[in-house]
Amino acid sequence: MSSINDLLRTKRDGGSLTAEQITNLIDAYTAGDVPDYQMSAFLMAGFLNGLSATEAAALTRAMLYSGDVLDLSDLPGTKVDKHSTGGVGDKVSIILAPLVAACGVPVPMISGRGLGHTGGTLDKLESLPGFRTDLAIPAYRKQLANLGVVMIGQTAEIAPADKKLYALRDVTATVESIPFIAASIMSKKLAEGIDALVLDVKSGRGAFMKDEADARRLAETLVGIGLEFGKPTVARLTAMDVPLGRAIGNWPEMAECIRILRGETPAGGTVDDLLDITLTLAGEMLHLGGVADSFEDGRAQATITLADGSAFEKLGELVEAQGGDTSVLDDPDVREGAQPVATVEAPTSGFVADIDSLALGLGAVRLGAGRAKKEDNVDPTAGFVLLKKPGEAVEPGEPIAHIFASDSSRVDEAAVRDAFTFTDEAPEPRALLLDRYDRDGWASTAS
Amino acid sequence: MSSINDLLRTKRDGGSLTAEQITNLIDAYTAGDVPDYQMSAFLMAGFLNGLSATEAAALTRAMLYSGDVLDLSDLPGTKVDKHSTGGVGDKVSIILAPLVAACGVPVPMISGRGLGHTGGTLDKLESLPGFRTDLAIPAYRKQLANLGVVMIGQTAEIAPADKKLYALRDVTATVESIPFIAASIMSKKLAEGIDALVLDVKSGRGAFMKDEADARRLAETLVGIGLEFGKPTVARLTAMDVPLGRAIGNWPEMAECIRILRGETPAGGTVDDLLDITLTLAGEMLHLGGVADSFEDGRAQATITLADGSAFEKLGELVEAQGGDTSVLDDPDVREGAQPVATVEAPTSGFVADIDSLALGLGAVRLGAGRAKKEDNVDPTAGFVLLKKPGEAVEPGEPIAHIFASDSSRVDEAAVRDAFTFTDEAPEPRALLLDRYDRDGWASTAS
Repeated sequence: MSSINDLLRTKRDGGSLTAEQITNLIDAYTAGDVPDYQMSAFLMAGFLNGLSATEAAALTRAMLYSGDVLDLSDLPGTKVDKHSTGGVGDKVSIILAPLVAACGVPVPMISGRGLGHTGGTLDKLESLPGFRTDLAIPAYRKQLANLGVVMIGQTAEIAPADKKLYALRDVTATVESIPFIAASIMSKKLAEGIDALVLDVKSGRGAFMKDEADARRLAETLVGIGLEFGKPTVARLTAMDVPLGRAIGNWPEMAECIRILRGETPAGGTVDDLLDITLTLAGEMLHLGGVADSFEDGRAQATITLADGSAFEKLGELVEAQGGDTSVLDDPDVREGAQPVATVEAPTSGFVADIDSLALGLGAVRLGAGRAKKEDNVDPTAGFVLLKKPGEAVEPGEPIAHIFASDSSRVDEAAVRDAFTFTDEAPEPRALLLDRYDRDGWASTAS
Repeated sequence: MSSINDLLRTKRDGGSLTAEQITNLIDAYTAGDVPDYQMSAFLMAGFLNGLSATEAAALTRAMLYSGDVLDLSDLPGTKVDKHSTGGVGDKVSIILAPLVAACGVPVPMISGRGLGHTGGTLDKLESLPGFRTDLAIPAYRKQLANLGVVMIGQTAEIAPADKKLYALRDVTATVESIPFIAASIMSKKLAEGIDALVLDVKSGRGAFMKDEADARRLAETLVGIGLEFGKPTVARLTAMDVPLGRAIGNWPEMAECIRILRGETPAGGTVDDLLDITLTLAGEMLHLGGVADSFEDGRAQATITLADGSAFEKLGELVEAQGGDTSVLDDPDVREGAQPVATVEAPTSGFVADIDSLALGLGAVRLGAGRAKKEDNVDPTAGFVLLKKPGEAVEPGEPIAHIFASDSSRVDEAAVRDAFTFTDEAPEPRALLLDRYDRDGWASTAS
């Protein structure tokens, strides 16, 4: 007891713990030898006084080794995954994983569920009828070896200390801490058996990090931890002010991904922002995976592979291997619930100036697409498709969004309309790819 | 759950809670509806970000009303108590309570036990054979009405929220926080049924507040809370660098008090510092108690009452009423264990320059006089008497301290000697009464 008190006092007074002290603390907490009330005092002290790079790496390591750490080194290829810090309409993984695998880089991806205003890859995958994300580890290995891509949910064996700590952070107002967020993300990613990692760190209104300076610090911390573990790690800083693509919600987003992989234009129109981020992250993954000489070369390979249909073919293999109904891949509109229940119209003429992604993310949760609490069920088809995005012209009464929902009593057209703002003149396009961070620092400040 | 999280977030981000929010939090915690792990996050956030005056008063009020609040308003007189933040050799209460009562001001005193390097009034009283401090509340009221003085320990009915919170602070490194300390002290004092309060806030090496600025902030917070509750409250800031008086340890200190109340010189010689603080605090209490027109008048009355034997007579009544053996009042040296088991000698000639009160306080704990843990038993006779104090001349081999102990294996003469430092020339006397704080602010900065 007294030694835990000493650690708490050190952290409270602005000092740093050694890697060994952090390891002992987390090990004892996971074993139940340190009670929640001491750990929550540590979490609040760490939240307010920060963690050093050494502490963050030690925390990650302790959480990582609290459970199983997969070893995929017997499988050929450089295994690369991508992690996004989450945004509204961020369905990148669903296009990216089959695309990168089709280019020859194995993608072992373990994802989470949606919580709060951003969706989760697992919920999106499971909105495809029959798709199973609860594969056991032997099946995960086997599928990765056969297909080069596998997408599952976190198993109980992976980073149990993170689960226990996250539950405690959730009820002690210590969630929004950069080192704790970074350690939580990296402990789960490093457990997957990856060789390298690409991070999409989002900043802006619809991101967890509203502030760009915070997002930059998170990117630096994540990359620092990855490098500390000997894994080449690259972070892209991307804007999350307006929704990514046009679809928000589980099946609407799946349908958007299927259309893109089919080489078609998704419902509502082109999705240049979604394609730009997806191809950029694919370029980084192909470069880290050793099949491209540079990011630019990787992006070019990915562009070709998306266009030639082999990425869509890989999606089909993935869906089939994980039990999904492949018939919806031919025409996503045939899925039950895939038709809009309401349409929102423009109140004015002019241009869409802005779309509040946070408002739409929270609106999607209210519609049933997401979870306010972990225990909530999601409505797989609920969501929105934006028929107009910023910069696009509108006439009064012209449809600007479709609403999808199993429970039409939850539909709130005014709330969707209020997320749009309009302007008389076409607004300036916004930057999407803000910066890039790797072992050499930020691209924007590189000499 | 979510509303507690909101409170935690506010406190974490440097905001202030309303009085109602604090009340609800403490009430829910005391009722068991808020778990320890959320309260410890609150404690750490409050420790690091501080509490406003409103928050500290609300915390005090919530802890106060978590248990019984005595109402002594049917008893005549203005009831006044004194609280000291604790120091080495601080036996002031034992002289002060009968002295002030003998001057006509009722003193309802509920005290604590020693923990750490400072002793506790209860342990000192109980070192007098037979003396009982576990009086129930009806007996407490009756004795106060009959004698004008009663000295007991905290009952389970008083401020149970403080007990629960203190136990949690103790294991979460959140003890040393000025607002939490102040709320803990004041919730217990206000429960006693007092009309006014005098505080002895100690600063220096042997005090809990080593730093004078911290001690000043504590005094301001304590007085602010007292005034908030409509109780006239005065704080004296006093130095605690060298032990107060000459005796350290339970019976040695009781014996010193008895000698002083008898009008005799205690073992080891005169104790001007102890008398000065005692008469000063008595002067304040008599003024607040309405029997003196000013502090100076009160101090003069107390000086006379100490000299004329009526304070000693009151001590006799107190000891008899609470079951103590009055025979030791005639000659404290007859008590078993009252003879020294070792004597420490000066290693050099010159003057005593300094005595490290913290070292002697910790030495007394090791000797058995105090507690390292709450469950420890104390040795009632263990302790020291300083035969030389700073400024007094010594010759090599001259006795400078006596050591008392039931277990002679615990005696460490070298440690006692090392607490002394010597000098060739007589050192400058140090200030003892540093400042005074009341509703008009600090005396030193009064216009």
